[in-house]
Amino acid sequence: MEKSLAQLTEYLEGELVGDPATKIRGVAAIEEAGKGELSFLANPKYAHLLKTTSASAVIVARETSAEGIKTSLIKHGNPYFAFAKAVELFAGARKISPEGVHGTAVLGEGVKLERGVHVGPQVVVENGVRLGRDSAVLAGSFIGADSSLGEGCLVYPNVTIRENVQIGKNVIIHSGAVIGSDGFGYAREKGVHQKIPQIGGVKIEDEVEIGANVTIDRAALGTTRIGKGTKIDNLVQIGHNVDIGKRCIIVAQVGIGGSTKIGDDSIIAGQAGLVGHLNIGKKVVIGAQSGVTKDIPDQTTAFGFPAREIRKARRIEAHLSRLDLYVQRLKEVERKLKEMGRTSP
Amino acid sequence: MEKSLAQLTEYLEGELVGDPATKIRGVAAIEEAGKGELSFLANPKYAHLLKTTSASAVIVARETSAEGIKTSLIKHGNPYFAFAKAVELFAGARKISPEGVHGTAVLGEGVKLERGVHVGPQVVVENGVRLGRDSAVLAGSFIGADSSLGEGCLVYPNVTIRENVQIGKNVIIHSGAVIGSDGFGYAREKGVHQKIPQIGGVKIEDEVEIGANVTIDRAALGTTRIGKGTKIDNLVQIGHNVDIGKRCIIVAQVGIGGSTKIGDDSIIAGQAGLVGHLNIGKKVVIGAQSGVTKDIPDQTTAFGFPAREIRKARRIEAHLSRLDLYVQRLKEVERKLKEMGRTSP
Amino acid sequence: MEKSLAQLTEYLEGELVGDPATKIRGVAAIEEAGKGELSFLANPKYAHLLKTTSASAVIVARETSAEGIKTSLIKHGNPYFAFAKAVELFAGARKISPEGVHGTAVLGEGVKLERGVHVGPQVVVENGVRLGRDSAVLAGSFIGADSSLGEGCLVYPNVTIRENVQIGKNVIIHSGAVIGSDGFGYAREKGVHQKIPQIGGVKIEDEVEIGANVTIDRAALGTTRIGKGTKIDNLVQIGHNVDIGKRCIIVAQVGIGGSTKIGDDSIIAGQAGLVGHLNIGKKVVIGAQSGVTKDIPDQTTAFGFPAREIRKARRIEAHLSRLDLYVQRLKEVERKLKEMGRTSP
Repeated sequence: MEKSLAQLTEYLEGELVGDPATKIRGVAAIEEAGKGELSFLANPKYAHLLKTTSASAVIVARETSAEGIKTSLIKHGNPYFAFAKAVELFAGARKISPEGVHGTAVLGEGVKLERGVHVGPQVVVENGVRLGRDSAVLAGSFIGADSSLGEGCLVYPNVTIRENVQIGKNVIIHSGAVIGSDGFGYAREKGVHQKIPQIGGVKIEDEVEIGANVTIDRAALGTTRIGKGTKIDNLVQIGHNVDIGKRCIIVAQVGIGGSTKIGDDSIIAGQAGLVGHLNIGKKVVIGAQSGVTKDIPDQTTAFGFPAREIRKARRIEAHLSRLDLYVQRLKEVERKLKEMGRTSP
Repeated sequence: MEKSLAQLTEYLEGELVGDPATKIRGVAAIEEAGKGELSFLANPKYAHLLKTTSASAVIVARETSAEGIKTSLIKHGNPYFAFAKAVELFAGARKISPEGVHGTAVLGEGVKLERGVHVGPQVVVENGVRLGRDSAVLAGSFIGADSSLGEGCLVYPNVTIRENVQIGKNVIIHSGAVIGSDGFGYAREKGVHQKIPQIGGVKIEDEVEIGANVTIDRAALGTTRIGKGTKIDNLVQIGHNVDIGKRCIIVAQVGIGGSTKIGDDSIIAGQAGLVGHLNIGKKVVIGAQSGVTKDIPDQTTAFGFPAREIRKARRIEAHLSRLDLYVQRLKEVERKLKEMGRTSP
Repeated sequence: MEKSLAQLTEYLEGELVGDPATKIRGVAAIEEAGKGELSFLANPKYAHLLKTTSASAVIVARETSAEGIKTSLIKHGNPYFAFAKAVELFAGARKISPEGVHGTAVLGEGVKLERGVHVGPQVVVENGVRLGRDSAVLAGSFIGADSSLGEGCLVYPNVTIRENVQIGKNVIIHSGAVIGSDGFGYAREKGVHQKIPQIGGVKIEDEVEIGANVTIDRAALGTTRIGKGTKIDNLVQIGHNVDIGKRCIIVAQVGIGGSTKIGDDSIIAGQAGLVGHLNIGKKVVIGAQSGVTKDIPDQTTAFGFPAREIRKARRIEAHLSRLDLYVQRLKEVERKLKEMGRTSP
């Protein structure tokens, strides 16, 4: 496919600085793009690349100056989003897997496959599973009894979805993820750990994306829930009975302890850990590697170990950087006092 | 199944406050339970729910006050354990997989299957493996040559157990876990990392439970050991030649460096990390996200980064919270001294 | 196989202290080795074991004193490396999988298998994949369309390699690893997270080893690269467009944010986290659990949260250990000042 910059700018609803007749036939990273390719610049840290890129055009933020830049620019209010649309246009949003069940797949009784469903090689689907319209379950994945996937789901190879897991529409689950493993619950009695049977379920709402090798435990009782539009990065651990709101972002290697609730539109940065039974509000931001041990109210940014409100945390950090100086100053004060003691009558 | 509260209280060895004739037919979470359902309350944080629950009865700690509470209470010295027994009674402890080998499973030579063994679809069992009585290996799992599982083991789908791994009785292994991967060992020679062949094994003792996507490396030489009754949560990393005692609790995302030894009945909270070659005593408790760099004696609670004995760690933390104040006080002292210097003759 | 200590010492290019005629027929850990077995001692922490071991010989560092030690010693400039060679000699470097494709494997169209390739049971290889000479793909693994593996690669069971992943020679990938999962990229537009299609690839260079349950994301555009000879431990997360140099060591549970570059010969210790878009130099060492938020120049050791140059970090840590004392001293200064204020005229 080939589009002129005029056509492309109109499609992306941007503003063109450059030659409208220039032809674009693909997308590429700004360092690698050549003639006929479109790139983008979202991070101002890389602005100098605009002067050296060989791309025929670059999508940039509206406020970007075109001075001294030879390549054409498509200015946009949300360059990252505009680029996502361009990538979809040229590279295709998603390869569609053809309808059908591979001959090596094993399907249980009462499995309901809606129209357009693809079941790949070596897949195992247990009794009573429902796979929604146009969903694809790729090679080697497992779907346990009575689980269900809504319309348009994409399950990558070697995923494990245990029994009684309810998954909404357009959910993407990456390889190695495990959904519905037993929660970690024991009662200590007579010196040994007695397992608490974990008989609850998991509910994954529409438009959720779950990263590679993520683990989401089933509830002891009730339901572990991931709210609509929430995106979870790789190697995240979500304990039993956790309840995550809508449109949250959970970055790689985060761990969330059992029964903790997280409000809508919250962001948890990489490697942060939250103990169990917390109430985290809406629009909360938790910094990378933070250790959260207390409830956090709505619209709060928290940070550090233990996590504190960001201004408090930053102040402690600044003081830590100056500790050396403070200790010097304390010694100086002690010296002066000693001197005064000596000279005073 | 249906039980009267009188029957149930006797079975659980509790003490009933309420109507002994009330019928119970299931268990549920306290917020969701309705008429005919039993729930439990272990965490006093949720005590207010006793006044609003629709459950017909709730298992509670012995000291819980029944004042102002309409629902029946079963008082118990270990409510969590009593509830585990109740869940088993109503929901069944574990679904038994039927004896037999699925037609798509691939079994090597000299595999020994004891009575009651279940081998699921797409499973691969290599030469010389022994599967103990009533064990189940579910879909897509792999068991390497000469490994053995004792009686009553449950291996969930998509588990990898490499060669020469010895597993005891009643061990549960969750999906995505990898047991017996090579330890991480290289010798630097002529500027490159030469791999040290990892030719040791892994021994998992009876009653161990291993979470989803856990990794346990085989020993370089000798054995990586997980002691009887130890429970390991999801995404934990256990290095080569680690030796974990009996009845330990290892919470999610913990990492344990090679050759470290951990004594019986120790607890390591989530995301903690231990460097290699440490001796951690018995009944040690290590706080969440701690970084352990030194040996820890028996019956010690340690915490923080680097991990310190808990009272020392708590004091540092308290001082950090007051650093701002201390710096103000230091400035005030400096101001006064300056003033005195000016006014003194 | 059996070798005399004379033969063995010559083969390992060491220096013998003991009886050259002693026969060795295997290797074992120093605590477990018996008559006829060779062991090694690299960590001086365990030097006392030289006096109690039953091994017939032990490889040790050149400077080790033989005084009071009855077992024979092979002294060597790099005992760890010498031992690796001895292990290979007696235990074999790697079991060779026989050439052939298992009957249950599923191969797509245009798959190119070079001489000596082994494809295990339940493996799925998609269209256009190339498997280099003597490579082995073990049970249940998946290789996506148009990916390629060089000569001598070893892919353990239940690995997932997505489409368009280029892998060099002699690469080892452990079970549960996921290579080429989508990077974590969304553009927020109209209140929801729009997925940025991740259409780049992954390049794994020669001699790389990748641990169990590691996740390496494909680039958004361009390439995520792991340089030649780099070794990655279990449960590590590598974000999209990350570029790791040659001969790096990345210890378990490290997380590296998108687009970060790491220079050759760097070492990142366990559970450390690096945010995205950083430039980390060559021969950098990052301490365990560190949180890296800024660029690090060549040959720097950094440590802590946030990571600081090691001397600065160590000083802060030392001050923290003495905070209690400093606060006492501050109080003492205040007390004296108050006293002076009272007694001064």
